[in-house]
Amino acid sequence: MRRLAPALAASILLAAGAALAGPSSDALPADATSGAAALQREELSNGRAFSIVQSLVDEVGPRLAGSRADRAAVAWALRTMPTLGLSDVHAERAQVTHWERGAEHAEIVAPMKQPLVVAALGGSVGTPPGGLDAPVVEAASLDALRKLDPAAVRGKIVFLNTPMRRTRDGSGYGETVRSRFFGAREAQKLGAVALLLRSVGTDHDRIAHTGAKSRDEHEIPAAALSVPDADLLHRELEENTTVRVRLALGARTLPPAGSANVIGEVPGRERPDEVVVIGAHLDSWDQGGGAIDDGAGVGIALETGRLIAALPRKPRRTVRVVLFANEEHGLEGAKTYARDHAADAARHVAATEADFGGDAVYAVRWLGDPAQRERFVQLARLLAPLGVERQDDPAGAGADVSPLQQLGVPILDLRQDGTRYFDYHHTPNDTLDKIDPPTLAQAAAAFATAVWAAADMDGDFGRVPDDQRKRTHH
Amino acid sequence: MRRLAPALAASILLAAGAALAGPSSDALPADATSGAAALQREELSNGRAFSIVQSLVDEVGPRLAGSRADRAAVAWALRTMPTLGLSDVHAERAQVTHWERGAEHAEIVAPMKQPLVVAALGGSVGTPPGGLDAPVVEAASLDALRKLDPAAVRGKIVFLNTPMRRTRDGSGYGETVRSRFFGAREAQKLGAVALLLRSVGTDHDRIAHTGAKSRDEHEIPAAALSVPDADLLHRELEENTTVRVRLALGARTLPPAGSANVIGEVPGRERPDEVVVIGAHLDSWDQGGGAIDDGAGVGIALETGRLIAALPRKPRRTVRVVLFANEEHGLEGAKTYARDHAADAARHVAATEADFGGDAVYAVRWLGDPAQRERFVQLARLLAPLGVERQDDPAGAGADVSPLQQLGVPILDLRQDGTRYFDYHHTPNDTLDKIDPPTLAQAAAAFATAVWAAADMDGDFGRVPDDQRKRTHH
Repeated sequence: MRRLAPALAASILLAAGAALAGPSSDALPADATSGAAALQREELSNGRAFSIVQSLVDEVGPRLAGSRADRAAVAWALRTMPTLGLSDVHAERAQVTHWERGAEHAEIVAPMKQPLVVAALGGSVGTPPGGLDAPVVEAASLDALRKLDPAAVRGKIVFLNTPMRRTRDGSGYGETVRSRFFGAREAQKLGAVALLLRSVGTDHDRIAHTGAKSRDEHEIPAAALSVPDADLLHRELEENTTVRVRLALGARTLPPAGSANVIGEVPGRERPDEVVVIGAHLDSWDQGGGAIDDGAGVGIALETGRLIAALPRKPRRTVRVVLFANEEHGLEGAKTYARDHAADAARHVAATEADFGGDAVYAVRWLGDPAQRERFVQLARLLAPLGVERQDDPAGAGADVSPLQQLGVPILDLRQDGTRYFDYHHTPNDTLDKIDPPTLAQAAAAFATAVWAAADMDGDFGRVPDDQRKRTHH
Repeated sequence: MRRLAPALAASILLAAGAALAGPSSDALPADATSGAAALQREELSNGRAFSIVQSLVDEVGPRLAGSRADRAAVAWALRTMPTLGLSDVHAERAQVTHWERGAEHAEIVAPMKQPLVVAALGGSVGTPPGGLDAPVVEAASLDALRKLDPAAVRGKIVFLNTPMRRTRDGSGYGETVRSRFFGAREAQKLGAVALLLRSVGTDHDRIAHTGAKSRDEHEIPAAALSVPDADLLHRELEENTTVRVRLALGARTLPPAGSANVIGEVPGRERPDEVVVIGAHLDSWDQGGGAIDDGAGVGIALETGRLIAALPRKPRRTVRVVLFANEEHGLEGAKTYARDHAADAARHVAATEADFGGDAVYAVRWLGDPAQRERFVQLARLLAPLGVERQDDPAGAGADVSPLQQLGVPILDLRQDGTRYFDYHHTPNDTLDKIDPPTLAQAAAAFATAVWAAADMDGDFGRVPDDQRKRTHH
């Protein structure tokens, strides 16, 4: 957790106070600074974000969309929200993709035997029963793959070996995840029989990172290799003219299943029909406990609701916590919410999403009507005591709020430190011990401050200009 | 890798030089310091220890005693040793325990479903076909387990949840490994149907650490849980009155199999029938590549042989590299060597073993005739430029040379930094990327220096006194 030095924090508070007393003082209520400080103090001293995550992880565990545990997660959210002081708690049905992993196995079979740790990519088809066995051809990137001679690929397993950069802002993921999403499609076009992908992750653990892939008409089985296994396969291909791999995936897609977005609110004291949405997703991948992805976000979102519900004076507008269905490989929850609430889009004054793990918020960005920028500048000042800096680049909307952005809803983008996130993301290693409770409390305090301020301010952020409604990846 | 500051290193070299010029100068040859410096320079600049490990890991991979890959490892050693300049390369047959893991599966089944990552302990029996399903009772240590009321244990799965301390010297392992070795025996005495052990490891990865357990007449299935799974099970037992686990282990022991110690030498120039042994073990557990355990030791031992074989003037005595069979769960290679060479024990002037990973040597200890201590003090000075300190506590012999210690053979104990070792030890995560090549070169330089000096000195270390021949764990 990053903290500001006390002297620096004090000077920022003074500066914020000066600004609030100056000509722009109407952008936020006069008591915004003291109100934000109280919220932050409460969360950093008595926060419950971690215990909320623990409850979800321990009582439900992995909760892949469409599974029995996904329904258990919906039930968990419906019974938990009222205990946190949220009102009008209800589920809004969504049909979700239902895929299951089944058994999976891979090994190098020639020129020697070596076991490989793999995980099918989400949505992958299975192999024929008994698996397939083929020579391997390696490509370092999607572009390199596209340039291969189809004669060198036909009948083979393509091994797409794109390493990922470790970055604070997750930009390394954005660069590399294209290989996961489009690799099988490109390999199939060239006649490959399967795809093996170097895991999109920054760790060196013998654990493979799953994740969504594109859905295509002619599909080939696709699986991620752990990073050490990708390194091994690369070395074997350097040392041997032919390397054969056997791959058996039991993955299959079932008919769509019922799931739901779960919603709870803190009704606004003056304009209850205007809402600020804070979202996270309830589903997780199947192999880990879904602690950082997205139990942490669920904890942040619910804790934001709990903190604001406990205030003696509620904000002017309604705060709506939305726990979305199937963010991971279908986004049906987000699409359903945007479709069902399209008529209310104009009354959504802002949306934010927590889906980047449990580490600290280090920056805040915004997207809205540029004429209303001063409101954002003042809101950002409320976050400075938490060590959060204002960045003037446009916000990236998370996947679940991007359909709202497309409807013009302003976005608050609280950027969490992603340095460690992709060590565990989409793996069995996504477990509760990867979250540091005081650090999660900092993140919850930041989200709660921003949501509270957006809900309580007199004016609003306007609408996102038409030319900025296309999703920019977080 | 720890390095001495250059000024400090220089002062140590001067001190060593002064000592060699003084009254004790007959303990080591006059050119020992320059000879050691040359060996170290060669290893740190042009060392091949890492490439030897890579060759073993990539060409053979996991090599559980008795398996087909174990035989491939013997063949690898027989073909590799001559290329490194070793002479009289040969295999000495040993019968080894032959166990196999089979499929394994565990999950919490009540009050909710949660998957658990497990690994059968080496030598465990399997469960009945289809697995077993029983309530769980937790104990924090072997002592706490022994104190449980048999009525509270009968028919249950004992969960032995002993955390391991992270230490440089591996002492945390010594404290905790008793739970792995004796846990199933103690649980069975109280009527338990199975043992689940918190992995003996310092990581928080979703990966279970296997390892040997005692072999008993009445056995129950025994498996390690990954640390995050142990933490989860502990929390579930705190929150729920009854927690049931289903455990299915396909493990079984097969008839003993043929394996071998593989031996190669650098013949001594004056007293070829006197030998200094450097050992490591060729076998590994089945789930990882056996890079740190004990590919690194194999690399260090073979590199020691290669460096010394390449010297223009060979040491007075023979240097013997012994790659032992089945150190992991039987120690038959070490026992066979000690039995077959018992008549020659008096001509073994020292033994050392590399079986603690690929990290740096930070200290050296010794065991021999106390009257010969000055030889050890001078030998230790040769290691100071590598940042290795002399410790005057008695040496701990590694498992493979402990039978030689029992025969009175002096022990050189080059202590490697074990801080990270138990993050990966006995897991699928024991892969090549866990070794840092320059750090491994430091370790190889230290072992090579000590072995060379012991082989070249005029006098010897005498014999280990009778009362110190009992094994002290490394």
